Amino acid sequence: MNTTIETLLAHRSVRHFTEEKLTDEQIETIVACAQMASTSSFIQAYSIIGVKNPDTKARLAQLAGNQPYVEANGHFFVFCADLHRHETAGEMEQTNVSPSLESTEKFLVAAVDAALAAQNASIAAESMGLGICYIGGLRNNIEEVGEVLGLPDRVVPLFGLAVGEPAQETAVKPRLPLSNVYHQEKYEKNHDLFKKGLDEYNSTISAYYSGRTGGKRTDRWTEQMSGMLKEPKRMHMKPYLEKKGFMKS
Amino acid sequence: MNTTIETLLAHRSVRHFTEEKLTDEQIETIVACAQMASTSSFIQAYSIIGVKNPDTKARLAQLAGNQPYVEANGHFFVFCADLHRHETAGEMEQTNVSPSLESTEKFLVAAVDAALAAQNASIAAESMGLGICYIGGLRNNIEEVGEVLGLPDRVVPLFGLAVGEPAQETAVKPRLPLSNVYHQEKYEKNHDLFKKGLDEYNSTISAYYSGRTGGKRTDRWTEQMSGMLKEPKRMHMKPYLEKKGFMKS
Repeated sequence: MNTTIETLLAHRSVRHFTEEKLTDEQIETIVACAQMASTSSFIQAYSIIGVKNPDTKARLAQLAGNQPYVEANGHFFVFCADLHRHETAGEMEQTNVSPSLESTEKFLVAAVDAALAAQNASIAAESMGLGICYIGGLRNNIEEVGEVLGLPDRVVPLFGLAVGEPAQETAVKPRLPLSNVYHQEKYEKNHDLFKKGLDEYNSTISAYYSGRTGGKRTDRWTEQMSGMLKEPKRMHMKPYLEKKGFMKS
Repeated sequence: MNTTIETLLAHRSVRHFTEEKLTDEQIETIVACAQMASTSSFIQAYSIIGVKNPDTKARLAQLAGNQPYVEANGHFFVFCADLHRHETAGEMEQTNVSPSLESTEKFLVAAVDAALAAQNASIAAESMGLGICYIGGLRNNIEEVGEVLGLPDRVVPLFGLAVGEPAQETAVKPRLPLSNVYHQEKYEKNHDLFKKGLDEYNSTISAYYSGRTGGKRTDRWTEQMSGMLKEPKRMHMKPYLEKKGFMKS
């Protein structure tokens, strides 16, 4: 096992950071690594906003549902799907690219591009001994977040990434059984076998929470998921994306 | 600079592989690394299909627009957005989770989760000295690809990942100027400055292609992009996703 694989396998989200700020050199290395991720047909359809200003961070923390680690960290990145640059490219080449940019296909391309870049950023940070936490909560009030960051049309914030020196040891959380996620040749059709895998995983996760809370928490994974999914959330996403010029067709 | 950052910065897509197949141990390590990526609220909303069967690979290569490296590689992975598992979780907990699963928000969550996992897989592979190439071409005929892989409702293929031993040296491709991708505090509002960055990048990319083709190719990046984007592509994505139970609201 090489050190990169050790880093990947040791991932856990960090939500408590020391007061140490990232240096500009660290930030530049993280962004350079993000930029080297694969990108669909070289489209590079994302932007990253780096936030240091304490007032901006406090506002984003509030908009994300009062998550203190959006404010208290070593640096805060916001990863955006960005097709504004391609609108500009079309302008520079006197070509109408709008119908293409407005397709669901291109939104997917931009979201995947942004995620690949963010994961490279995360791994670069973790390889330096820093901790990270993705912040999907920015989508709770996505329109306001876009305003705070001054995002033009065709640019939307997808998620944040809090980075910093870990102030607390956290445990690696066990993932779904491999057989439930990795299918050979075809998707597993045996529904009983599939459920059996989830049953076993429920026991694993119950034991994990119980061990960490002295028996206070024992939630099963399927219980967590159905609890989280019983009420639809962030139903403003579709109209917001359309308003910003995405997924019109 | 540590070896993980060296690996990240050395990325280039590999499209020619030796005949050497990945071992089961390599595949398991790559999948284990994929699974350790961050996941939105622990939802783990993706599946990976591993394809070894030569006939299946040949069929996928054809569906992806006759890309030979979909067939000729050391292993082929297909990364899918997967909310079928959560439908099952709801069933097991007697909770109706369908309205939530059908939201645009949850499709985005699943697509980002799949991309984070895929990028971990890519980096794990590259850290072992293997090469990788993402295959968005699977979306050219996404419905047929889903049928070949036996994907149930609420599971859609997003992209493939060809992995193998590189048979050819390829060069690292220069990315957009950092100032064009990384914005401090707010998105760059000076459109002339933004365009100037793209102009400079055009020269970089022209020189890159010219150097690699002995002057035969000199395309600017904005020219490439506007050429690629002038005709909308894969306009079947929206109806297909809706048909498979995604993004209905």
